[in-house]
Amino acid sequence: MREVAIFEIGQTPVSEHWDKSLLELAGEPVLQIFEKTGMTSAEAIFVGNMLSGSANRQLHLGAYVADWVGAKHSGAVHVEAACGSGGAAFRAALMAVASGDVETAIAVGVEKMTDSPSADISSELAGASDADYERDMGLSFVALNALLMRRYMEEYGYRKDDFAGFSINAHANGVNNPNARFRYPITAEAYAKSAMAADPINILDASAMGDGAAAVLLVPLDRIADRENAVKVVGSGAATDAIAIHDRRDPLWLSAAELSAKKAYRQSGLTASDIDLFEVHDAFTIIEALSLEASGFAERGTGARWANLELISPHGKLPLATMGGLKARGHPVGATGIYQVVEAALQLRGEAGPNQVPGARIAMTQNIGGSGSNVYTHILRR
Amino acid sequence: MREVAIFEIGQTPVSEHWDKSLLELAGEPVLQIFEKTGMTSAEAIFVGNMLSGSANRQLHLGAYVADWVGAKHSGAVHVEAACGSGGAAFRAALMAVASGDVETAIAVGVEKMTDSPSADISSELAGASDADYERDMGLSFVALNALLMRRYMEEYGYRKDDFAGFSINAHANGVNNPNARFRYPITAEAYAKSAMAADPINILDASAMGDGAAAVLLVPLDRIADRENAVKVVGSGAATDAIAIHDRRDPLWLSAAELSAKKAYRQSGLTASDIDLFEVHDAFTIIEALSLEASGFAERGTGARWANLELISPHGKLPLATMGGLKARGHPVGATGIYQVVEAALQLRGEAGPNQVPGARIAMTQNIGGSGSNVYTHILRR
Repeated sequence: MREVAIFEIGQTPVSEHWDKSLLELAGEPVLQIFEKTGMTSAEAIFVGNMLSGSANRQLHLGAYVADWVGAKHSGAVHVEAACGSGGAAFRAALMAVASGDVETAIAVGVEKMTDSPSADISSELAGASDADYERDMGLSFVALNALLMRRYMEEYGYRKDDFAGFSINAHANGVNNPNARFRYPITAEAYAKSAMAADPINILDASAMGDGAAAVLLVPLDRIADRENAVKVVGSGAATDAIAIHDRRDPLWLSAAELSAKKAYRQSGLTASDIDLFEVHDAFTIIEALSLEASGFAERGTGARWANLELISPHGKLPLATMGGLKARGHPVGATGIYQVVEAALQLRGEAGPNQVPGARIAMTQNIGGSGSNVYTHILRR
Repeated sequence: MREVAIFEIGQTPVSEHWDKSLLELAGEPVLQIFEKTGMTSAEAIFVGNMLSGSANRQLHLGAYVADWVGAKHSGAVHVEAACGSGGAAFRAALMAVASGDVETAIAVGVEKMTDSPSADISSELAGASDADYERDMGLSFVALNALLMRRYMEEYGYRKDDFAGFSINAHANGVNNPNARFRYPITAEAYAKSAMAADPINILDASAMGDGAAAVLLVPLDRIADRENAVKVVGSGAATDAIAIHDRRDPLWLSAAELSAKKAYRQSGLTASDIDLFEVHDAFTIIEALSLEASGFAERGTGARWANLELISPHGKLPLATMGGLKARGHPVGATGIYQVVEAALQLRGEAGPNQVPGARIAMTQNIGGSGSNVYTHILRR
C-alpha cells in the first residue's frame, strides 16, 4: 500500500444549524480545505452520512456534494455505516489514495438532524439496529445501551456514579473547543442529578445529536514536501459484529472494536501503549468503557476505572475525547468519524490550543456504528 | 495498483420477491459464491443499495448483510450512488483489493422495491435528483428523462420509433436469461402501441423496477492459478456531473459518462473499438443513446442510430444489454451495477448460453446514477 497523509482539514461547529441546508453544511468544511490549499476540486469525494435519505429526503449525496462545492467531475460516492459512516468514508478515501487510483481524496462527514421533517429521529437512528428483532420490538438506541450498562454494572460491580468521570472529562474539554456543541463544564453532582433517559443511562451519559460537518483531504505521502511533519495514516482497520446484541456470544465484549484495533496496530507496528491520545466513540459512557477494553487499553471489566480525570484529561496517561468527544463536541452521527480524525490531526499538529496533549505524536480514532456492530479504527502518526 | 480479478459471481432472478426479506435477497448471491468457492467469509463486503433506509426502513446494510451471511467479522459497508450504487460498490471493492489492504472483497448489490412499505417508490427514487429544484417541483425520474428524449428528438431530428430497436434487442436477450424479469420478445408494433409514461417515454422505453441481488468476489490476480483465463478488471473510472439537468452546459451530453469511460480506457490501454460487448445503462432508451455517444461509440447526435439489431444483438458489431439489460433483465436500482458486471463476466467466461457473444474477450459496463450525474465505467478482460 502506498503511504497516505492528511494534507488539510475543515470543520463546522456542531450546533442546531436551522439556517443551513444539508448541502451548505457539507460544503463548508470542504470549501475551508479548498481555501486553505488553493485547490478547487479533488479527484474523489467520499461523503459519510447516515440519515439523509429519510431525515432530509435526499439521496445521492456523493454527486450532490461534489456538485455543490464545484467539484462536479470528481468521482464521488456516499458511504454509510450508521454512526460509523464518517470512519467508513475516511477508510474508503484512504483505500482510493493507497491503491494509487487517485492522488487527492476528500472524506467529508455530514449530518443534519435537528430540524428533520421526519417525525421521530430516534426511530430513524434505530435503522442502525436489527429492524426485525430490535427496533420493531421498541428498542431505541439508548435503551439498547442501557441494557449493556446495566449488565456491565451487575457483572463487574460498578455503581452508576463510577462512570461520571468520562462525561466530566468530555465537557471539560468541550469548553475550549470552538466547534463543540456544549462549552460548559459539568460536575459529579450535576451528573448524579441528571434526568434519566433509559435507566441507568441519564442525559449526561449520552451524547447529543446535532448538525455538523467535517472534512479531511488525503494525499500520497510522497506528494508532501515536509514528510517528517506530515500527519500520516499508519493504521486502518474495519470489522463488523452481529448487528443485534442478543446474537453476540458476549454482549460486554466489542469484538469488532477488538478486531479493527488489532488490524490497525498490526498495520502500524504499534501497540496500545504507544498511543498518545484516543478519540474514543463515547456515544454513551458504557461504550467508552467497553471500547477501552476491546482496544487493548484496559483489562476486561476494568474499562470504567478509566473514568478518572487524572488518567484521561489532556495531561493524563491516555487522553480521551480531547476536544469534547461525542458527549460535548456533539454527535452528528455520520460526521462524527471525521470530526475524530480532524481533532486527532489538530493534536498531532500541535494546534489543539488549551487542550493540547503535550508532545502528541501518535493518535488513535475509533468510530462505532450501531451498538458495536461496525467499527473503524485508525492510527495517525506525525 | 495491484491487478485484480473476478474470482466468482452470483445472482438471483430479478422478480417480485415478496417472499424474501431484503437480507435474504442480499444473502443469496453471496451464499452462491461461498458454495461455489468453499469460502465462508470475505475480508471486506461492500453493499450497493439505494433505497433501504426509506423503502425498507433499514440502514447499516454493511454489518447487516455481513452478519446474515455468516461473515460477521469482515469489514463491511454500505455504498450509495443512487442507481449507480452497484457500480460504486464494485469500484470500492476494487480499490480495497487493489490497495493491498484486503485479499478478498465481495461487492453485492441489492434492492427490494416491489413491496415497499413506502407509499410512493417514485418519490423515493427522485431522491437521486436535486430535491430542491427537481423533485420538489414534481419532476419524477421518468419525467426528467422524457425532457431529455424530447430535446434529443428535436435537436437531431429523430422520431420516437427510431428508439424501438434498443428495447427490442433487450427483450430478445432477456428471453434466454433465466434471471431476467421479462422473458418475452417484443415487436416494433408493440413498442409503438405501448402505454405512454411521460411523453415521449412509453412503458417499453423504460426499465422496470424489481427485486434482486447480485454479487462478485474480487481477489488479487496473483492469487489465481490460471491467470490467462481469469476475468481481470483492467479499467475503472468514476465521475460526476451537476446533479440537476438544468445546471449542465449541454443537457444532451453525459460528461460524467465521458470522463469515467475515458479514465477506464486510459487505465486499460484500450479504446472504444476494442470493446467486444457493452453492458449499457438502458434505464431509458434515451440514456442508452446518450451513453453510446459519451462513451466514444457514436458521434454526437448519432447514438440513436444504434437502435438496430444488426448492430447490437449478440452477433452484432457492438452487442448491448446482452442478458436483457435494465429493460428486460430488470432494474433493481442498487443491484443493477453488479448485475452488469456478473453478466459481462459470464460473457467473458463463455457461459452466456444462447446469448453468447462469439469470442468475447473485452467487456465494458457502465452504471449511471441519477440522470447522468454519477457514472461508473469498468472494463473487464479475459
